[in-house]
Amino acid sequence: MTPKYPCFVHFGVTLPTTNRKLSSPMRTRHSVAWALVFLLHAAAQTPLPSWGEGPSRKAIVHFVEEVTRDNGPQFVPPAERIAVFDNDGTLWCEQPMYVQLAFALDRVKALAPGHPEWKTKAPFHAALTGDLKALASGGEHALIELVMATHAGMTTEEFNIVVKDWMATARHPKTGRLYTEMVYQPMLELLTYLREHGFKPYIVSGGGIEFMRPWSERVYGIPPEQVIGSSIKTKYELLGGKPSIVRLPELNFIDDKSGKPVGIQQYIGRRPIAAFGNSDGDFQMLEWTTSGSGARLGVLVHHDDAVREFAYDRHSSIGRLDRGLDEAPKRNWLVVSMKEDWNQIFPISK
Amino acid sequence: MTPKYPCFVHFGVTLPTTNRKLSSPMRTRHSVAWALVFLLHAAAQTPLPSWGEGPSRKAIVHFVEEVTRDNGPQFVPPAERIAVFDNDGTLWCEQPMYVQLAFALDRVKALAPGHPEWKTKAPFHAALTGDLKALASGGEHALIELVMATHAGMTTEEFNIVVKDWMATARHPKTGRLYTEMVYQPMLELLTYLREHGFKPYIVSGGGIEFMRPWSERVYGIPPEQVIGSSIKTKYELLGGKPSIVRLPELNFIDDKSGKPVGIQQYIGRRPIAAFGNSDGDFQMLEWTTSGSGARLGVLVHHDDAVREFAYDRHSSIGRLDRGLDEAPKRNWLVVSMKEDWNQIFPISK
Repeated sequence: MTPKYPCFVHFGVTLPTTNRKLSSPMRTRHSVAWALVFLLHAAAQTPLPSWGEGPSRKAIVHFVEEVTRDNGPQFVPPAERIAVFDNDGTLWCEQPMYVQLAFALDRVKALAPGHPEWKTKAPFHAALTGDLKALASGGEHALIELVMATHAGMTTEEFNIVVKDWMATARHPKTGRLYTEMVYQPMLELLTYLREHGFKPYIVSGGGIEFMRPWSERVYGIPPEQVIGSSIKTKYELLGGKPSIVRLPELNFIDDKSGKPVGIQQYIGRRPIAAFGNSDGDFQMLEWTTSGSGARLGVLVHHDDAVREFAYDRHSSIGRLDRGLDEAPKRNWLVVSMKEDWNQIFPISK
Repeated sequence: MTPKYPCFVHFGVTLPTTNRKLSSPMRTRHSVAWALVFLLHAAAQTPLPSWGEGPSRKAIVHFVEEVTRDNGPQFVPPAERIAVFDNDGTLWCEQPMYVQLAFALDRVKALAPGHPEWKTKAPFHAALTGDLKALASGGEHALIELVMATHAGMTTEEFNIVVKDWMATARHPKTGRLYTEMVYQPMLELLTYLREHGFKPYIVSGGGIEFMRPWSERVYGIPPEQVIGSSIKTKYELLGGKPSIVRLPELNFIDDKSGKPVGIQQYIGRRPIAAFGNSDGDFQMLEWTTSGSGARLGVLVHHDDAVREFAYDRHSSIGRLDRGLDEAPKRNWLVVSMKEDWNQIFPISK
């Protein structure tokens, strides 16, 4: 089903022949029309242009074709085409630190004058002194703790604005690009491709749910109601007579590891048929997804491109992928090599 | 925008005139065609046929027209057209007891032989002896407690089957109809009408989330991921090597009163623009919804029809509506009279 030649071949071969007998203006107009036809044709034929012509792309396209073929043996009704995506390291870059950690560090610094006790207390001390190693060793749990403590005591609407403002200016320490430009182009294409085939994609992340919602729709096309993440407790109350939802400094839910299937059931209420992750924090999500009946797709993005992104797996404190690599073959999970399978990593700069 | 005459008037007046000169078979065929045209016309013109031509229907239609009019001052993009519905007493009948209470009572009886301690312990004692007054006085909280205790210790998939099986046979004590036929016809039409105008309807109920999900799509057209309710905690684990989500006997979240805006934020992540309830348990949901900027709709269904359904409000232990009645006028909430505004209460029996 995938074209053998990129679209310029169609142009080169077909256009001159077809338009030989036409007058010049007509030829121009017809050329434009033909170009359009072939562009559309090419677009329809290459749904994942940043994916190389390897087995990974083939397996994904095969799965989607199988579950969407009317009356086929693997057909899945559109309502049940739920796909779940981890965020950090799967949809966007998580190195050299989780983006939410960078956000939290900036918040700690901004709020520190009012919290002298932070100077000697973990993980705040590490945050203020920039001891990333100490922070990273705590994994997503440490990050979430930091976020809980520094992001409570305001309404959800106020927090939404804080996140949006930060996202509009904060930049990746290595590339200098906005964090929302550090998303993976092949995964953006995959989201579009799945949506075009009636899938409903969800984010299922260990990151904070209200940290992702303010920009997930703009960046990924995933609306807030399709974002599942870790959360702190909230309380509804009138503040100065104004109905408000206030963020409390108390953990509500950790959406990581075994928490991911729990979060999926809690929010979606049905088992996904496709799951995409990149670390052992996604293991149970892939396990839960792929152990259902019928066609299932489990995908692990393998960070093996030190030149264009970062190379890390079994021994990384961030996004460790160890058990997943061991068990992927026998579980029929697809391991996508960023180096081999992705022609492009990040979107072209605007 | 609403037609002055019901559709049979169109048939009576138009058909004989139009078909006068046609031969008999042709006339029959044309009559069918015309009938179809007028049926479609009538359907397009009367989106809420079971609603009387009173101010309630008018206010709802006006709101929907305003927020969906392109370039209008009150226009709301489709993605933000979130509508939230209470379930018990708003979408289906909650008298003489919550349906989930009837379900819980049947479960208590079925499981009682294995729990001798229930004979003397509240609320189980009341459940086993059929002391509905004692149970009802505890409100939704007592119901939820009962459900927690009797419905844990199995997987979510097992519980789904238990609920489906019960729903297929259990009948309302007064009408003898299936509970899923004890839904309000005008509200089914409202759900359809809102969906046709790009709204995404959610259930936001004090009832158990996994008690509603197995049938909400079939009965209301509301998929599991758009059902928000009270919940117990769950745990992901391997049972005999099989990935499972097990229901634990521990309360997770009460989606009632001030819990409703919290649940809405947690699951949807944006403020609804329309809210429909029937009791003071829905007060905060309506308050949160209608205190946002732009056009907003808050609706309370008033149970004032003792003949066709049940009449209760300020002094009822189930579905009490007291503060809501007092404050509806000054908050511009619509109070829908089931007696005056609804031409029909339940769907016609199949």
